[in-house]
Amino acid sequence: MNKYLQTDPWSIVEEGFHSDRQLASESIFSLGNGHMGQRANFEEFYSGETMLGSYIAGIYYPERAERGNWKNGYSEANDKIINAPNWTGIAVRLNDDQLDVSTWDVQNFKRVLNMHEGYLERTFEAISQKGHKIQVSVKRFLSMAESEVGAISYSVKSINYEGRISFMPLIDADVRNHLTNYNEPFWNVLQIKTDQDVSHLWAQTRRIDFHVCCAQTFVFYKNNELLNTIPTKIEKEKAAGYSIGTDVRVGDTVCINKYVAVLSSLNHPYEELTDRARTLARKAKGKGWNKLFEEHAAVWAQKWLHSDIIIEGDVESQQAIRFAIFQLNQTYDGNDARLNISPKGFTGEKYAGATRWDTEAMCIPFYLCTSVQSVSKNLLLYRYRHLPKAIQNAEKLGFTNGAALFPIATFNGVESFNDWELTFEEVHRNGIIAYAINDYVSYTGDENYLAEYGLKVLIAISRFWCQRVNISSEKQKYVILGVTGPNMYENNVNNNWFTNYIAVWCLQYTIDCIEKVKKNNFRVFEDLTQEIHLHNDELFQWKDIIENMYLPENKALGVFVQQDGFFDKTLMPAAEIPDAQLPVNQHWTWDRILRSSVIKQADVVHGLYFFENDFETETIRKNFEFYEPLTVHESSLSPGIHSIVASKIGNKQKAYELYLRTARIDLDDYNNEVADGLHITSMAGTWLSIVKGFGGMRVKDDMLQLNPQIPEKWNAFAFNIVFRENQLNVKVEKKQILIQNIKGSGIDLLVNNKRVHIKAESQEKIII
Amino acid sequence: MNKYLQTDPWSIVEEGFHSDRQLASESIFSLGNGHMGQRANFEEFYSGETMLGSYIAGIYYPERAERGNWKNGYSEANDKIINAPNWTGIAVRLNDDQLDVSTWDVQNFKRVLNMHEGYLERTFEAISQKGHKIQVSVKRFLSMAESEVGAISYSVKSINYEGRISFMPLIDADVRNHLTNYNEPFWNVLQIKTDQDVSHLWAQTRRIDFHVCCAQTFVFYKNNELLNTIPTKIEKEKAAGYSIGTDVRVGDTVCINKYVAVLSSLNHPYEELTDRARTLARKAKGKGWNKLFEEHAAVWAQKWLHSDIIIEGDVESQQAIRFAIFQLNQTYDGNDARLNISPKGFTGEKYAGATRWDTEAMCIPFYLCTSVQSVSKNLLLYRYRHLPKAIQNAEKLGFTNGAALFPIATFNGVESFNDWELTFEEVHRNGIIAYAINDYVSYTGDENYLAEYGLKVLIAISRFWCQRVNISSEKQKYVILGVTGPNMYENNVNNNWFTNYIAVWCLQYTIDCIEKVKKNNFRVFEDLTQEIHLHNDELFQWKDIIENMYLPENKALGVFVQQDGFFDKTLMPAAEIPDAQLPVNQHWTWDRILRSSVIKQADVVHGLYFFENDFETETIRKNFEFYEPLTVHESSLSPGIHSIVASKIGNKQKAYELYLRTARIDLDDYNNEVADGLHITSMAGTWLSIVKGFGGMRVKDDMLQLNPQIPEKWNAFAFNIVFRENQLNVKVEKKQILIQNIKGSGIDLLVNNKRVHIKAESQEKIII
Repeated sequence: MNKYLQTDPWSIVEEGFHSDRQLASESIFSLGNGHMGQRANFEEFYSGETMLGSYIAGIYYPERAERGNWKNGYSEANDKIINAPNWTGIAVRLNDDQLDVSTWDVQNFKRVLNMHEGYLERTFEAISQKGHKIQVSVKRFLSMAESEVGAISYSVKSINYEGRISFMPLIDADVRNHLTNYNEPFWNVLQIKTDQDVSHLWAQTRRIDFHVCCAQTFVFYKNNELLNTIPTKIEKEKAAGYSIGTDVRVGDTVCINKYVAVLSSLNHPYEELTDRARTLARKAKGKGWNKLFEEHAAVWAQKWLHSDIIIEGDVESQQAIRFAIFQLNQTYDGNDARLNISPKGFTGEKYAGATRWDTEAMCIPFYLCTSVQSVSKNLLLYRYRHLPKAIQNAEKLGFTNGAALFPIATFNGVESFNDWELTFEEVHRNGIIAYAINDYVSYTGDENYLAEYGLKVLIAISRFWCQRVNISSEKQKYVILGVTGPNMYENNVNNNWFTNYIAVWCLQYTIDCIEKVKKNNFRVFEDLTQEIHLHNDELFQWKDIIENMYLPENKALGVFVQQDGFFDKTLMPAAEIPDAQLPVNQHWTWDRILRSSVIKQADVVHGLYFFENDFETETIRKNFEFYEPLTVHESSLSPGIHSIVASKIGNKQKAYELYLRTARIDLDDYNNEVADGLHITSMAGTWLSIVKGFGGMRVKDDMLQLNPQIPEKWNAFAFNIVFRENQLNVKVEKKQILIQNIKGSGIDLLVNNKRVHIKAESQEKIII
Repeated sequence: MNKYLQTDPWSIVEEGFHSDRQLASESIFSLGNGHMGQRANFEEFYSGETMLGSYIAGIYYPERAERGNWKNGYSEANDKIINAPNWTGIAVRLNDDQLDVSTWDVQNFKRVLNMHEGYLERTFEAISQKGHKIQVSVKRFLSMAESEVGAISYSVKSINYEGRISFMPLIDADVRNHLTNYNEPFWNVLQIKTDQDVSHLWAQTRRIDFHVCCAQTFVFYKNNELLNTIPTKIEKEKAAGYSIGTDVRVGDTVCINKYVAVLSSLNHPYEELTDRARTLARKAKGKGWNKLFEEHAAVWAQKWLHSDIIIEGDVESQQAIRFAIFQLNQTYDGNDARLNISPKGFTGEKYAGATRWDTEAMCIPFYLCTSVQSVSKNLLLYRYRHLPKAIQNAEKLGFTNGAALFPIATFNGVESFNDWELTFEEVHRNGIIAYAINDYVSYTGDENYLAEYGLKVLIAISRFWCQRVNISSEKQKYVILGVTGPNMYENNVNNNWFTNYIAVWCLQYTIDCIEKVKKNNFRVFEDLTQEIHLHNDELFQWKDIIENMYLPENKALGVFVQQDGFFDKTLMPAAEIPDAQLPVNQHWTWDRILRSSVIKQADVVHGLYFFENDFETETIRKNFEFYEPLTVHESSLSPGIHSIVASKIGNKQKAYELYLRTARIDLDDYNNEVADGLHITSMAGTWLSIVKGFGGMRVKDDMLQLNPQIPEKWNAFAFNIVFRENQLNVKVEKKQILIQNIKGSGIDLLVNNKRVHIKAESQEKIII
C-alpha cells in the first residue's frame, strides 16, 4: 500500500513531488483516447528514473521469441506493444541551464489528472543551481474528438531570472521498449523534415511494415502575446523539431502551445501519411487551444453522462470508481474492430499490450452497459475476424475439423505468448469467448449477430472441446487433462472443475444457438452448415460429452473440487500467510506456490459467477465460503468477481471489503506494481462489482433485473446504464431506489423480483 | 536412421566425403582427453556448414538468463560450456587459392577415428578450380599422457601442381557459441604474441575471470626434410600464428607438425599462464611427434585393458560398444573432483555442457567397474563439495534446517537451468545422488567414505524429502505433490511412484548409514551430529514417512501407477504411432505429448531397475510389460535401462532389441540429432546393458554376482571389470563362462547363484 495521492471526487492529485513514486505516477496520470495513449512522462528533460511510454493502438512489434525451445507448438514471435516516437518532448533552457525536476530545487509541485474533462496539469516552481527561479505550468490532453491529435501548453514564468528562456519542442524516435528480449531498437526513421511551421518524423517498425508519422507545430507567446520569432530548425538522425526562445525579465511569462498529429498506416495510405499528418497538425493549430479543448471536453461530458457512478458518503470510493470509468474510456472507444483492450491499456508495456480473455470476462459487460451497442459488437467482431487464425492455431496443436483455439494473448489473431502451461493449457479462454457472445446477445437481444457471426465461432469452439476431452478408463467419464484454470497458481492439472464446466456449457449453448438460428434463419444456417461441413454426428457426440462429463465434487464438504488432487494439499487460509510474504508471487518461489493451497483467483468461484443461474444460492454460498479464505487475490481480476458473488449470497461485509481491494488497487498500489502500468481490464471488474454486485443488475429472458443493496459506509450510490435503447439512471439509497428513464420509450424491469415500469423520461421510486 | 559409416571393430570410418553429414561427423569423430575436447572440425578453411567446438573442462560462461520471469526461484545465469579459442586451424594455400573441401573437387576422401590408439586421421585428394591437384593427409590427437597438449600433422603432396604451398597455423579467438541467448562474444583477448618459435593467444571470459592461454609451435618439412624457413608472424586482433610456405614441384610433399598447449587458470596461476603455455608447447615439440604419440597410445592401451568389451559375431555391436567406452574415457579421466561429465561431453553445446543426474545414474557404475576407485570417488566428491550450494539452493526455495536440493544442471554447484517444471520439480535427482553413494560404497566397500563425506550429503537430502512431503487429508498418507519424474513427458504431477519410492529409499538408507557410522566411527558421527544439529526427532519423522508414504498402485493390473491420474489417459502403445511422427518430440506439440500416454523413459521401470532387490521378479515383469510398450525411448538414457530390466526378467529378445537401440544411437543417428553432439552419458548405459544386462553383474553383500546370458546373434562376449583390487575378465560363450583373474589376490563370486573361487592370475570355466 502506497498512499501518496490526494482524495478528490473528480481528480487525481499529487501534491509535492514524490520522485520515488515517479514511475507509479507516470502510470496513474496516463492519458489516452482510444487511438493512442501516453504515460505521464515529463515534457522537459528529466534525469530521474522514468519509463517513457507512448503507444498507438494497433501498432505492435513482433519481436523474435526469446529462445529456441525443444517444446513444439510455440510462436516464433512475441508480439508486443511498441514504445512509439515520443511526441511530448519540450526541453526548457534558461540560457545554458536545462530544466530538470530531478536536480533543480522544486517547490509547490502539484500534478492533477482532471477526469471530468480529461486533461493532465502540472504546476511547480523550480530553482536552478545558479539560483534562477521559475514558475512552470503545463497542461496536456489527447483529444477525444480528434483522436489523432495531442496538445500541450507549456508556460514558464520568471520569478527572479533575467535572460533567455528557450523551448525545444521535439518528436523523438530514439526510443526503446523497456521490456525486450534482445534490447534491439524497433524503429527505422524514414524521414525527418522540419519546415518553418511544421516538423515531422516518419518512422517504420523494423519488422511488419507499420508506419507512423508524428507532425508538430506550435505557437509561442510572451506575456500572452504571440511572438513571431523565427525558430531554429532541428533535424537530427532520430529527432525533429525546433528551438525557440526569447529574453525575459522578472515577471515575464513565456508559453508554447504544441500541437501534434500522430497518424499510422493502420488508418492512412503509406504515401499520404506525412502530408496528412502535417495537414492535421496545422488544422489543430488553426483551431486553437480553446476550441480544440472544448470539443474534447464535450466528448467527455457525453461519456460521463452514460457511464458515471456517483457514490455518496465515501470520497475514496467515488474517486476510485471514476478513475476506473475514466481509464476504460481512455483505452477503448469501440470504433474499430481491429483494436481491443490489453490488461495495461496504454499505461505500460507489461503483458505486452496484447489482448487477453480479460476483455470478454470483464470489459464487454462494462461497454455493453455504458456505450452504444456497436462498441461491444466490435469487441466480439475482433474475435470473429481472428477465427481463421484460431483454427490454424488449433491445427498447429494437432486439432482437426475446424476446431479453434483462440490465443491467450494476441494483436492480430496469432498466438504471441509462449509459456506452455498457459499457451497450450489455459484453454478456458475459449469458453469465455463463447460466453461473451451469450452475454452480448442476452443483453442486446441482437440475435442476428448469432446467425451472421457468433454461431460460426461457437461451433469452432465446440469442435475444440469435443477433441480436447477423452474418456477416462478409470472414471468412465469424459475428462479434460492438462489444463491451467483462471487460478494460474496451479498448472497442468486434470479435471479443473471450471474448465470442465465451461466446456460443457459451450457445447450446450452452441447446440441451443444452432436450434435458434436453424429456426429463425434457416437459409443462413444451411449456408453455414455447408461451409463448415457441420454434421449431425458431431452434435450427438457433443450431447454425449454434456451428459457424461466428469465434474469433481467433494460431497462431504458440499463443494466442487478445483481439480483432481486438490485435497492432497495441506489447506492453509490465506489469512495465515504473514504480511511480509505478500503478495506471495513476489515472495514465494513458483515451486512453493504450486504446491500450496494458495489460490490466485478461485476457479470455482469464477464458475459460479458466470453460471450462477445453474446453481442454488446455498451451493454458491458453500463454495464461496470454502474457496474465498484460500484466495490471495493476486490477480487484479479476482476481488471484483469475488465481490459480486459475495453480494449475490448476501455477504455485504465481504462484498464491500473485496470491492475496496479492487477499487483502489492502482491508486493505493496494493501490490507494489503500478509503476508497470494500470490494471485497466480489472477496472471493469470494479465497475461490475458495483453494478452487478451492489446493484444486483442482471438480464434474464430479455428483462433487466435489479436487486440492489448498499454498503454500510455509503449513503447512496447511483449508476447509469443503457438497456435496449433506454438510458437509465439507478440511484440506490438506504431506504429507496430511484430509477430514472433519461431517454427511451419506457421499460419494464424487475426490481427485487417485482415488475416495475419506468415510463419515458420519468422516474420511479421503489421503497426498500 | 542415417547409416553412412563403415563397420569396423576398432575404428569409425567415413569413406567418401558426406558434406550433408559434416555436422554429424564433427560430433562422431570428436577427440578428447578429459582435460579438453575438440569436435572434428577441419583444420583448413571450410566454407560448408560447420559448428566449431573446442572445449576446456571446467571452463564455462555464465550467460545472462533469457528473461525476467515473474516466477521466483530461477537463477540469474544460464551457465554454459564455452566454445574456446580454436587451436586446430591450419589454412592451406596453393599460391592464392585456399584449400576448401566444400568448393574444391574432392576425391578418395577417408576419415578414420582410430579408437585403439585414440587419433583422428583424414586423407583425400583435392583439385582446385584451376585444376591443381593435391593429396592431403592429416592426423591429430589430444594427448592422454600430457592432457594440456594437442598435436596435428598436416601434409600436402603435389600431384600436378607447381608453385608455392603455404600453411597458416593459427590460434583463433574470434569464436562464438552456437547456442547463446544474446549472441554476444564470450571472450576478451588479453594478449597476442608471436615470436620466432612460439605464438600464443591469451584470452579471458567476459564474466567470471577464467583465463585460457593457447600456445603453438611447429615444425615444417619438405619431402621429410626439416626446412628452416622463416615464417611470417601473424598477430591479429583475435588471432595469433604464422604463415609459412615453400615452392613445390610435382611429387613434392610438404608437411607441418603443429604442437599446441592449452592451459587454463583452473590449473595455473594467472601470472604464469602464458609462460607455462609457451614452455609446454616447446616441450612437446622437443619431444617430437613419435614420442608424444607413443606416450599417448600407451595410456589408451592401459584404458582398453581395463575397460574393453569384446563381442564375437556382431561387428556392428563390437564397434558400437568400443565407441561408447572410447568416448567415456575421452570425456572424463577422474583426476579432478572439480570436473564432471555432461550429457554431450566435449562434442557439442547442447545441454549447456553442464552436469546432470546422468552422472550418478549411468556413469558412476561404468567408472566404478573400469577404473581405479579414485575416479568414481572424485565424481562423488564433486557433489559433496557442492553441498553448501545445494543447501543454499533449497533455502532459496523455502526449505530450512540444512535441507539440500542439488541442481538439475550445474558447473559449480549453483543451479544453471531455468524451466520450472524441471528446475523446481524434477527432484528425484536428489535421490539418484544419494543412490550413487550407496552404489559406490556397496561396490568398493569404502565405508570410510560414508563417515567422511557421504553421510552429510545423505542427511541433507533426507531433510529435503522430509520437507517436500505433506500429509494428504484425503489419503491420510504422505504425498509428494508437483514433481516431474524421469519421464519428462509428464510435468508437475502428484505422487509420481518413482519419486515417492526413491524418497522413502533415501530416508531409509540415511537411517541405515547413520546406524553404521554411529557404530563404526562414533567420534566422527558425534562431530557431524553437532555440526549439522541432527536431532533424534528428525529420524522419528523420517520413519513415519517411510511407513506412511503413499505409493500409487493399480491392483487390478498388478502394476505401480506412474502418477496420480495416469489412468485417466487414453492408453496407446508406442507401436501405433506412425513412423512419420517419430520422434514425437520433433513432431507433436508439447500439449499433445503431455496429454498422451507416451512415455519418454518409464519412471516405474527406472524404479524397478534401481531397487530391483525390493521386488519379486514377477512384479518387475508385470510392470515392464505394461510400461515398455508405452515407451518411445526418446531419452537416450532409456533403452539401456529398459534393456537391463528385460535381461533381468529373462526377455532376451527385448533386451537385445533395446541394446541395439542404445548402442548405435549416435553412429546410426537414430533420432536425427547427432549433429548437436554425442550422447556421452547414455554410452555408459550401453555399457551397463552388456555388463549388468547380459552379464547379469551385481554386487550384493560385498560379493560380486554374475548371471550371464548371451544374445542369440552373438557367439561370445567378454568384459573387463575391477572389483576390490581384482582385475577380472569375464567371457561369456554359448555353453560356458570363462572368468580370468588377471590381477589380484583371488576372489569368491557367485555365478548363476553358485559360489566360484577365482585364484590369483588364473582362469575358471563354468559350464552353462
